[in-house]
Amino acid sequence: MHLQRLTVIGVGLIGGSFALKLKQLGRVVDVVGYGRNTQNLEKAVELGVIDRYASSLADAVQDADLVVLAVPLASIAPIYAQIATYLKPDAIVTDVGSAKASVVEQIETQLGFKPAQFVPGHPIAGREKSGVEAVEADLYQNHRVILTPQDYTNTDAVNKVESLWQAVGAQVTRMTATYHDEVFAATSHLPHLLAFALVDMLNEHSELGNVFQYTAGGFRDFTRIASSDATMWRDIALQNASAIVKWLAAYQVELTKLSQLIEQQQGNQLYDLFADAKAARDKHIINKR
Amino acid sequence: MHLQRLTVIGVGLIGGSFALKLKQLGRVVDVVGYGRNTQNLEKAVELGVIDRYASSLADAVQDADLVVLAVPLASIAPIYAQIATYLKPDAIVTDVGSAKASVVEQIETQLGFKPAQFVPGHPIAGREKSGVEAVEADLYQNHRVILTPQDYTNTDAVNKVESLWQAVGAQVTRMTATYHDEVFAATSHLPHLLAFALVDMLNEHSELGNVFQYTAGGFRDFTRIASSDATMWRDIALQNASAIVKWLAAYQVELTKLSQLIEQQQGNQLYDLFADAKAARDKHIINKR
Repeated sequence: MHLQRLTVIGVGLIGGSFALKLKQLGRVVDVVGYGRNTQNLEKAVELGVIDRYASSLADAVQDADLVVLAVPLASIAPIYAQIATYLKPDAIVTDVGSAKASVVEQIETQLGFKPAQFVPGHPIAGREKSGVEAVEADLYQNHRVILTPQDYTNTDAVNKVESLWQAVGAQVTRMTATYHDEVFAATSHLPHLLAFALVDMLNEHSELGNVFQYTAGGFRDFTRIASSDATMWRDIALQNASAIVKWLAAYQVELTKLSQLIEQQQGNQLYDLFADAKAARDKHIINKR
Repeated sequence: MHLQRLTVIGVGLIGGSFALKLKQLGRVVDVVGYGRNTQNLEKAVELGVIDRYASSLADAVQDADLVVLAVPLASIAPIYAQIATYLKPDAIVTDVGSAKASVVEQIETQLGFKPAQFVPGHPIAGREKSGVEAVEADLYQNHRVILTPQDYTNTDAVNKVESLWQAVGAQVTRMTATYHDEVFAATSHLPHLLAFALVDMLNEHSELGNVFQYTAGGFRDFTRIASSDATMWRDIALQNASAIVKWLAAYQVELTKLSQLIEQQQGNQLYDLFADAKAARDKHIINKR
């Protein structure tokens, strides 16, 4: 698929890397950027990530074939509502939010209809760095992108978005928004919250003094995700609340079981639990990118 | 301090790296190894980590000035009890166990007296690799070693062990065994258990299918410590049970608070919690080795 005009709203690592690679591949003629920070947009032009930027949302999406909403989770639906009347009828809109059911629901509510041209998406390619200066054309190489089309979504639109993500190197998987939210609550949102909670607890329990000085590499790796952006994670926690609360509860059950095994000195069962976890991780994670 | 004879019981990464560096520095004349695996001991001789190995514990500790018990946590006290009658009266014994109060207590019980020549120690220098082939002379460079002398411990023995750890590059800190166990329950044992518990839960909740395929770099780092040795962590869980159970309970309180904030959509408080955790980690961990 080739695009005449691609509009990226929110020109940072995620949207910028997608645009840059499509430009390098010759899949798009004209890339328009939009964002609140003019300096950032100028930098994006300088880096060749976008061809030009617009000064209003209306101008930005005019004649766009595809609009990528690469903005914070809480801004997706409000921005969609602002651009809706300026879109070409066959323009496709996609997003990159980490929660899907709530975004779809908010868009439906704010638009007042079910947008067949909207393809909900989630590229799994976070980096510690962010912003347009972190842009990498090969960011999505061998990374997954999840699409969660609704039953009313135009199949042709889904196929087009899928082929563009594949063009930039991603492995695309389709699933329901609800399944997406469960899986990422368990595998991504939960570990982030666990890391934030551990650092927060150690920081607040001052009776032990500064315990961080005694930590080593294991702690540094375990808590790396606690250095993630607080605004982004507040939004994810709020938008995927029910799945997260459910998995936090399941995890508390697991911790209670573990605590009881330790208190009752159940060496064999503790060994089995640790050995099973190690085997599962060694099997599924170690040789994985 | 110079040693005529150093005996290392359990010639793996931890004990072997200590011996090798002391040899390279000319701080020891004769290094004797002991272990259950003869092939491993031969490899240690070949690598220059030890000068020779003994075929019995009695031979191994004969005329030793310092004995390092670099064996699994549960074996420290039993081995001490086996070597006690063969030690020179002024021989110093030290260990490298990750829990301290229980080890001291078991040694006192098994020996039937309080050994003034025993200096409880804990080098904070784990690696994913283990075994004599992973030995590195500079393993302890800029790493911490904790010593937890008891009120009856011979001060001269503590000073000697401290100076040897400093000679191999470590930064030595003295603290009580109880404080050690609290700090490491919170900063090391707890994160290991949290990582094991998460992987175990995802592995057992098969209703979502194989969710590991959707994980990315954040999950891999968070769970790296869940690929640790199951036997070692069973022993740590059993030996530092009371401090671990206490910190698991404190952590569950933290998770319950977090879950309530999410359920009640308390964005400001969630933001503050995440931002505080990020600030604490960025301050204490990121620029730390």
